Formats: sequence, structure tokens, C-alpha cells
Amino acid sequence: MNNYKFLIEYDGSRYSGWQRQPEQTTIQGKLENVLGVLCGKETEVIGAGRTDAGVHARGMAANAFLETDCTPEEIRDYLNRYLPDDIAVKEVRQASPRFHARYNAIGKTYRYTCYTGEVRPVFDRKYYWALDEMPDVKLMLQAAELLKGEHDFRNFCVNPRMKKSTVRVVDRIEITCEGGYLYFTFHGTGFLQNMVRIMVGTLLEVGCGRMTPQQVKEVLECPDRKKAGPTAPPQGLCLMSVDYD
Amino acid sequence: MNNYKFLIEYDGSRYSGWQRQPEQTTIQGKLENVLGVLCGKETEVIGAGRTDAGVHARGMAANAFLETDCTPEEIRDYLNRYLPDDIAVKEVRQASPRFHARYNAIGKTYRYTCYTGEVRPVFDRKYYWALDEMPDVKLMLQAAELLKGEHDFRNFCVNPRMKKSTVRVVDRIEITCEGGYLYFTFHGTGFLQNMVRIMVGTLLEVGCGRMTPQQVKEVLECPDRKKAGPTAPPQGLCLMSVDYD
Repeated sequence: MNNYKFLIEYDGSRYSGWQRQPEQTTIQGKLENVLGVLCGKETEVIGAGRTDAGVHARGMAANAFLETDCTPEEIRDYLNRYLPDDIAVKEVRQASPRFHARYNAIGKTYRYTCYTGEVRPVFDRKYYWALDEMPDVKLMLQAAELLKGEHDFRNFCVNPRMKKSTVRVVDRIEITCEGGYLYFTFHGTGFLQNMVRIMVGTLLEVGCGRMTPQQVKEVLECPDRKKAGPTAPPQGLCLMSVDYD
Repeated sequence: MNNYKFLIEYDGSRYSGWQRQPEQTTIQGKLENVLGVLCGKETEVIGAGRTDAGVHARGMAANAFLETDCTPEEIRDYLNRYLPDDIAVKEVRQASPRFHARYNAIGKTYRYTCYTGEVRPVFDRKYYWALDEMPDVKLMLQAAELLKGEHDFRNFCVNPRMKKSTVRVVDRIEITCEGGYLYFTFHGTGFLQNMVRIMVGTLLEVGCGRMTPQQVKEVLECPDRKKAGPTAPPQGLCLMSVDYD
């Protein structure tokens, strides 16, 4: 029984998110089904984190203990042959028995894509959020500076569980424009549920003049009393990579 | 009544091609329906050519005579508001009454995309043809040189109509590789039905060692006796642009 690390890409459009759930189509569920057939027994796949329904990934990491004579490359090819074409296993490699995709993850990069041009491109239409106005990037960068660092992000998540810490560190937020697209890139040690999408929704409130950077600071500092912006829709979000030591 | 020129992008995946046909979903049909509502009467849209079922376009050109008080920009926005999200009108401009999108077209550029890497990318999976082996590009370039020029391409089309000329000029064929993708770019004065896809299928036969460049020459020179390669599937093909004077 060896431990394997997986690097996975998926178009989340038609999935109820990463996490296996009864009666739902999920990415974890699809992977576990195919690996279960390969190994001839129930198999658990541990993801680096959960992505919400409709969210995509270019670099999700996961691990699983498998009893098989296949080489890592054969496991990869087997998975890609039987998985649907909106999930691809880019890499399989043997890992230390102690490797745990969630506990050992030390950072994650997410990218959120908006389109701000006049005519919406058709080929990547499932991978961006089309905005009706061009937000002020300079104002958003001011607000992003305030979001950076260690904060209690309780106001930037859904279902905060009172017993668990909602303190997280976001050490990089980049906002770039290119050919009608507006990209928000976030790097941090970890993110709460919906946290990236709420940060994007909040930054866009600032960019469109409906919130000031100062108000963002207040939301961070008074998580019990102030409200963050709305949650940006899932299709613009993509988990780009997961860092390990 | 003014004549307008349209520049159109579409994902052809779910369409029975460009051309209006009874009981079929087509791009021309969708455009004519929306313009018909805008103008309050039946409207014909003339395309620069027909694309087959499943073929995409980034730069299809078309024209239509419209009776409307809208500006070209308002026509564009109206179309984009009511067209499905896999068709986008990138540009509308007023044209000379003599402009005819098909008769005045003097050249077209098509690109065919294959993927030759080991793991198929998911996000653009509807826009390439995945190959099982990496063809020999040098051999394909030799065969492409033979296809270039003025030839009777009767063997490179479906349904050649005997009364119509099947002579065409292909003045540019480029074959490039980039990050697992293999691109075939064709420029010519015009193309017969399925001609680009049959040229791609034939070049791949050469690249995979099942035909020699010399045999391609024979197919071109003896169109009555020799057979070209198979027709590459539609999803890899995209009409990139149409040239006018």
C-alpha cells in the first residue's frame, strides 16, 4: 500500500464542488469511483481543500493510499481514460507515507477572472464573470493592501464555525488587466469557505465606488458589526496551485 | 435600408453549422431570428461562407440589409443581448450597398488545432482534436509544400458538384507546435466543403507514416483515381478571418 500524490485539473461547471456528497456529482466522488475500480476496493482521496460548486482548478493537489502494481504513470493514464473529459489528472507520483494533501499544504494560489470588455468572448465563457462596468483598479489596489496580512476574516466567509479560528494570512493580492480581462490573484496560507469570492466581491464594491477602502478596513477590524461585499459567482474562480515544503 | 457588415465569433459545438436549415439550430438562423425581431420583418444574413456542423469561428464575416434607426453599436449590443452566449457579434459597421460578404471575400484563414501531449487539457477540450501519437512535422511540411498553390482539390472535398470548378489556390500552410498543441494554419482564396479537414487528415497520414508526400502529390494530380486521407473531426477547426479589399 503506497501513498500517491495527484495533481488535478478540472472544469467545475457541472459539479457540486470537490467534496464527495451523497447523490451529488463531485470531483472527489469521480476520482474515488475510478480508483476504487482500479484497486478493487473502496478508496479515499484526500484533497488539499474543498472547492465550491462551479469553481475550477488547474492545480488541485490530493493524495490517496493505493494497493496496486501499476506505476504512477499507469495510474495517471488509467484515471484519464475513465474520468469524464472535464477532469484530468496531470501528474501522479509516489509520496512519503506521511504526506497528507490537506495537513501539509502550506499555501494556495487562487485566481479570479472577470471580463470587462464590451463584447463577451465565447470560447472561455464558462471561466469568467462578465462585469457591466470597468472598476477603478487603483482604488481596488488600495483596498487590497488593507486585506493583506493576518486578519480575522470571519466577515469574509459563509458559515463561520464559532469554535474554529477564522484568522488567516493573505500575503499576496495582485490585480491585473489584460485584453479586456481583469485578474485577481490571491496567495495565502489558507482560505475560508467563499473567502476568495467575498474578497473579490468586496474589492469590486470599492472599484465601483459603492464602498471605500476605509470601510473595508472597518469590516476587517469589527468582524461582528460590519458587512463585507457580496460573493462573486463561482465560475470566475480557479485554484491555480497548492504549495508544499 | 442600409447594408451592415458583421464580424462574428462562435462556438460551433452545438450547431448544425452556419447555414440556416429547417428544424436545425444554426448560427445564421440564430442571427436572422434576432435581427428579424429588431427590424420587425424577415431578414437575411449573408455569410462569407458556410462552416460545417461543430466548426468554430473567431472571425466570420457577414452582411445584412437592415431597416432600423439603431446605430451600428446599438445593433451589436442588441444582438449580443439576445443571442445565446456561444455566439458573439464583435463588430457591426455600415457598409457600401454593394458589399456582399461572400462575393467580395478574397481570402480566408482557417486554423486546425490538435493536442499531442499525454494529458488532455480540460478547459479548451471542445476546441482541439487529441492525437494518440506525435506526427512527424518535417514530413508534414514537405507534404504541405505540395498542397500549396493552385490545384484541382476535387479529392479534398465532399460532394464535389461536377459542374462547378473545384480548382482553388492555397497560398499559405503553416504547421507549428506549442506546449503540446499542434496548429495547422491555412490561407487561401476559398475552400471546398470539408477541404481544410481533409487536408489536415491527409497531412496527419503523412506525419504518422501511413502516406508519403509523393502520394499526396499523386492525389492532387490524379483527382479521379487517388484517395486523400480521412476527414479530421470538426471541433478542431476554426475560421480565423475573412479578407476583403
